[in-house]
Amino acid sequence: MTEQLLRVMNFCVSRDGIACGPGEDQSLEEPFGLPRPERLFSWAGATASWPNRTDPGGSRGLDDYFTRDFPRNIGAEIMGRNKFGPQRGPWQDHDWQGWWGDEPPFRTPVFVMTHHSRPSFTLSDTTFHFVEGDPKTVLEQAKEAAQGQDVRLGGGVTTVRQFLDADLVDTLHVAVAPVELGSGLRLWDSPDELEDRFNHEAVPSASGVVHHLYWRR
Amino acid sequence: MTEQLLRVMNFCVSRDGIACGPGEDQSLEEPFGLPRPERLFSWAGATASWPNRTDPGGSRGLDDYFTRDFPRNIGAEIMGRNKFGPQRGPWQDHDWQGWWGDEPPFRTPVFVMTHHSRPSFTLSDTTFHFVEGDPKTVLEQAKEAAQGQDVRLGGGVTTVRQFLDADLVDTLHVAVAPVELGSGLRLWDSPDELEDRFNHEAVPSASGVVHHLYWRR
Repeated sequence: MTEQLLRVMNFCVSRDGIACGPGEDQSLEEPFGLPRPERLFSWAGATASWPNRTDPGGSRGLDDYFTRDFPRNIGAEIMGRNKFGPQRGPWQDHDWQGWWGDEPPFRTPVFVMTHHSRPSFTLSDTTFHFVEGDPKTVLEQAKEAAQGQDVRLGGGVTTVRQFLDADLVDTLHVAVAPVELGSGLRLWDSPDELEDRFNHEAVPSASGVVHHLYWRR
Repeated sequence: MTEQLLRVMNFCVSRDGIACGPGEDQSLEEPFGLPRPERLFSWAGATASWPNRTDPGGSRGLDDYFTRDFPRNIGAEIMGRNKFGPQRGPWQDHDWQGWWGDEPPFRTPVFVMTHHSRPSFTLSDTTFHFVEGDPKTVLEQAKEAAQGQDVRLGGGVTTVRQFLDADLVDTLHVAVAPVELGSGLRLWDSPDELEDRFNHEAVPSASGVVHHLYWRR
């Protein structure tokens, strides 16, 4: 099977479908433009396979199957510029190298979608490329770089919506956290609204999160 | 984290805890000593990542996370002789090479526990070794062969019980199928009976199976 999938993985939203604050609220201090974004992510941080885990331990129940799946058969990631950093408009300089320190968890080529060109750079096993183009074109580039493996669509929410609107997404895993945020950028009004195109399973976890799984009909 | 786990994965039992027929019912025609053993396994065969899948397609919901996890970070398997074949007593010849054809799905060293010695042999990426020893000793051999990766405890049920009794198992995933079998070899009287030593989550799947996940306290 040489089918290459575009996969949304471990994408976290609130019960009211919100993934981050309004774009203008994003800052160096608040990458998600939200106070206490760990309310959306803490389920992942509690697992044994969380990529940023430094101490031993962590749960090995249902939630861990999702965090341990993160690198499996993934050969490239696509992300929007607002996932990469808080800057807007032309790059003032090239000092900013993402939120992830010297060892980004991607360990593949990463394609950052932006209208503002910038040279590629490498940190450990991850190389960031800055690309302009419509979703279809960027996906073709990423698939080629992935050399037969799948491509992860990393977000943010605007980028996920863009690829969903272009019908380019093959599978989605969205973790809905037990919190209401009220305002911000929304993935959806309801988890059911993708059912016209996708099979859908909703799987409640002991952590309080509900994992929503979608794959093409 | 260099911790090497011993993991029971995708182990299938009935609602009344039965994994196979009584040992004497095993035969070439009925490897599980059960009529229609697919009643226990069909959930796995329906998934996109089932190792024996030859046609495209298959589900990518919850059940697929379990079948796709099968090879992840596994460097060796341990199995009982009755999983390897229906013979009992000394090997009459060495013609029998397991149930799995020329491409066994293990793709690692496999340690078959038996009191009857036999030379190792290799089929594609899988090498079968025949070893005598208590569970602890065999686990040490398998861990060394796994070179830092985890070891899968493949079964059958008597072998899983033996390693559980020796307290050597670190994680278990047991899929309970919606069928009652009445008689045969039992993994347990109740899924709760491992809770003294293990954390336990029970996760119902849309397929009708309930996935029971255990990891050490």
